[in-house]
Amino acid sequence: MTIQSFIPPKRILMGPGPSDISPQVLQALSRPTVGHLDPLFINMMDELKQLLKYAFQTDNEFTIAVSAPGSAGMEACFVNLVEPGDKVIVCRNGVFGDRMRENVIRAGGSAVIVDDNWGEAVSIDKVESALKAHPDTKILAFVHAETSTGAQSDAKVLGKLAKQYGVLTIVDTVTSLAGIPLKVDEWQLDAVYSGSQKCLSCVPGLSPVTFSPLAIEKIQSRRTPVQSWFLDQSLVLGYWSGNDKRSYHHTAPVNSLYALHESLVMLKNEGLENTWKRHQEMHNKLKNGLDKLGFEFVVEPEIRLPQLNTILVPQGIDDARVRGQLLNQYNLEIGAGLGDLAGKAWRIGLMGYGARNENVSLCLRALEEVMVL
Amino acid sequence: MTIQSFIPPKRILMGPGPSDISPQVLQALSRPTVGHLDPLFINMMDELKQLLKYAFQTDNEFTIAVSAPGSAGMEACFVNLVEPGDKVIVCRNGVFGDRMRENVIRAGGSAVIVDDNWGEAVSIDKVESALKAHPDTKILAFVHAETSTGAQSDAKVLGKLAKQYGVLTIVDTVTSLAGIPLKVDEWQLDAVYSGSQKCLSCVPGLSPVTFSPLAIEKIQSRRTPVQSWFLDQSLVLGYWSGNDKRSYHHTAPVNSLYALHESLVMLKNEGLENTWKRHQEMHNKLKNGLDKLGFEFVVEPEIRLPQLNTILVPQGIDDARVRGQLLNQYNLEIGAGLGDLAGKAWRIGLMGYGARNENVSLCLRALEEVMVL
Repeated sequence: MTIQSFIPPKRILMGPGPSDISPQVLQALSRPTVGHLDPLFINMMDELKQLLKYAFQTDNEFTIAVSAPGSAGMEACFVNLVEPGDKVIVCRNGVFGDRMRENVIRAGGSAVIVDDNWGEAVSIDKVESALKAHPDTKILAFVHAETSTGAQSDAKVLGKLAKQYGVLTIVDTVTSLAGIPLKVDEWQLDAVYSGSQKCLSCVPGLSPVTFSPLAIEKIQSRRTPVQSWFLDQSLVLGYWSGNDKRSYHHTAPVNSLYALHESLVMLKNEGLENTWKRHQEMHNKLKNGLDKLGFEFVVEPEIRLPQLNTILVPQGIDDARVRGQLLNQYNLEIGAGLGDLAGKAWRIGLMGYGARNENVSLCLRALEEVMVL
Repeated sequence: MTIQSFIPPKRILMGPGPSDISPQVLQALSRPTVGHLDPLFINMMDELKQLLKYAFQTDNEFTIAVSAPGSAGMEACFVNLVEPGDKVIVCRNGVFGDRMRENVIRAGGSAVIVDDNWGEAVSIDKVESALKAHPDTKILAFVHAETSTGAQSDAKVLGKLAKQYGVLTIVDTVTSLAGIPLKVDEWQLDAVYSGSQKCLSCVPGLSPVTFSPLAIEKIQSRRTPVQSWFLDQSLVLGYWSGNDKRSYHHTAPVNSLYALHESLVMLKNEGLENTWKRHQEMHNKLKNGLDKLGFEFVVEPEIRLPQLNTILVPQGIDDARVRGQLLNQYNLEIGAGLGDLAGKAWRIGLMGYGARNENVSLCLRALEEVMVL
């Protein structure tokens, strides 16, 4: 059997990510590859750092893109900050909180779990109780926007609480970055990671991260080496230092970084405030339409993410049949439920370039058509 | 200061990688992104596995692309195969052997170093002595084609030796895959990793890997969990299983995988034997030209890699001046020396799509013009 070139259809991506990608970003992606030590490329990486600082709203010098997906960005935060024996409070209200726990354990730390129901926010009270009960805690880890449920937690208040108790924070902003307000410096967050394929609407495969001076201090005062060579940020920093003495670490994913640069230029041009507003407006339109169709949201309005709408599959409706029809007949992808919500919910993403009027209209109309069949 | 879109020049990439990329591959890269759980994409990943098996010349079921650069592919091999306390013989004849040592130590193993001079092949005799002296060795690790020097080691003989002594092999084929003969099954190699950006001429950022049944057995009989969540291949395997029950692990770098698929289709169409032959022919032409210009090779002819030509910077010539002129006046990139060879050597790559007649001619002529200035 001869394998041919793969020609994908043009899907409309309204799942939990990857999100719809602008033609402008895909065009940047396919520009001619240059060497990863080319002076022009080094200059582009320096611009990328500045653009990421803007997206994260931070002045952190250590603000880069890990050359691997968000899961690797998560791991970069944990393996650099957690030393064997370190106690970490991990908030778990969905899939990604549990992945954080895995990371703590594999890094040799001990995890204190603060559980909340799927679809609810992280409970500030429970976190404060845990901080009181475990005064030897080094790090508080939580997810800002749970991709598995569509619930938002209060990163500002959690960040403040952590500082009151003198602990560092590791914050998952994979789905929040550029979709809802995120202010790394103002909220005093320490190690923050995200993904390229959500509200930045870049191709999947990169993980923007930023480390505060306190996080850097913790890394520099480690008694043991970081267990990962690839994710050892003290080595990576030398690579991203943006000057002629840049030390070789690995070969950067050149073309993917072109695309990230372009998506960040687009973000800067639109402006963060406008981007947040657009996500909210598109959510409002989608919500109104879904209400009229009789759908129920999993998450309460106050903590609902505009960019990730989780709705219950109506009684008697076959989850897979509907998603299959949307994909095959409309080229429209929405997301299945994950973990506890598998088979019970759909996740409709309005992320980045995907948060457009025409997408919302199509989605509402297609759902309506497919549900009555 | 406003940051604009980044428009790179069209370079001719004749360094140690990334290599020149075919327009066909860049076109594939920028095709519309589909969801990573889209049935069409899952089918493409299955084709990709088949194509990688062909490239590696293996029937290993576990043959995939790690969603990160070659350094992460290296780490994937070490953190999965090495358990704390395991003794690993590491052959070091360049930069990447030393990186292997780092990986062993960070995975909690103990490394026995077999040193050879930079530019020489791994000594079979020394390896056999080490195997005899350390009967408790679990793994032999070596680099097939040292990117830092351009020297080839005898992977066939080393693979056989390892089997005689009942140890597994971890083999770096980052620069060898698709450039010179590599026969994973015939040579009985166990954990083999490569990179997308060398002789496959795909964009940087992916690391093809293949694990033999013996390697899988070692992983499955581990007493301790793999220290990395992202690189835990028992989790990754579920993601690449290519059926409807695929378990979610991370979001695949969709577009980069399109490009890898395309570069492998091109490889399959040309045929491995023809590809190896083309690399050798282009090397012969380059070598003849360089000889006439009076250049000296660092590596002896018998172990010289056709795809990576390391030559000494002639006395009195300013390394950086020449490379700078080639880049700025000819858009031609050649590589600097690395490690012990920094400032003393150039590395001229003839990798994949870069191994073309017109590239060799340009390189020889440009070198001639620039050297007499």
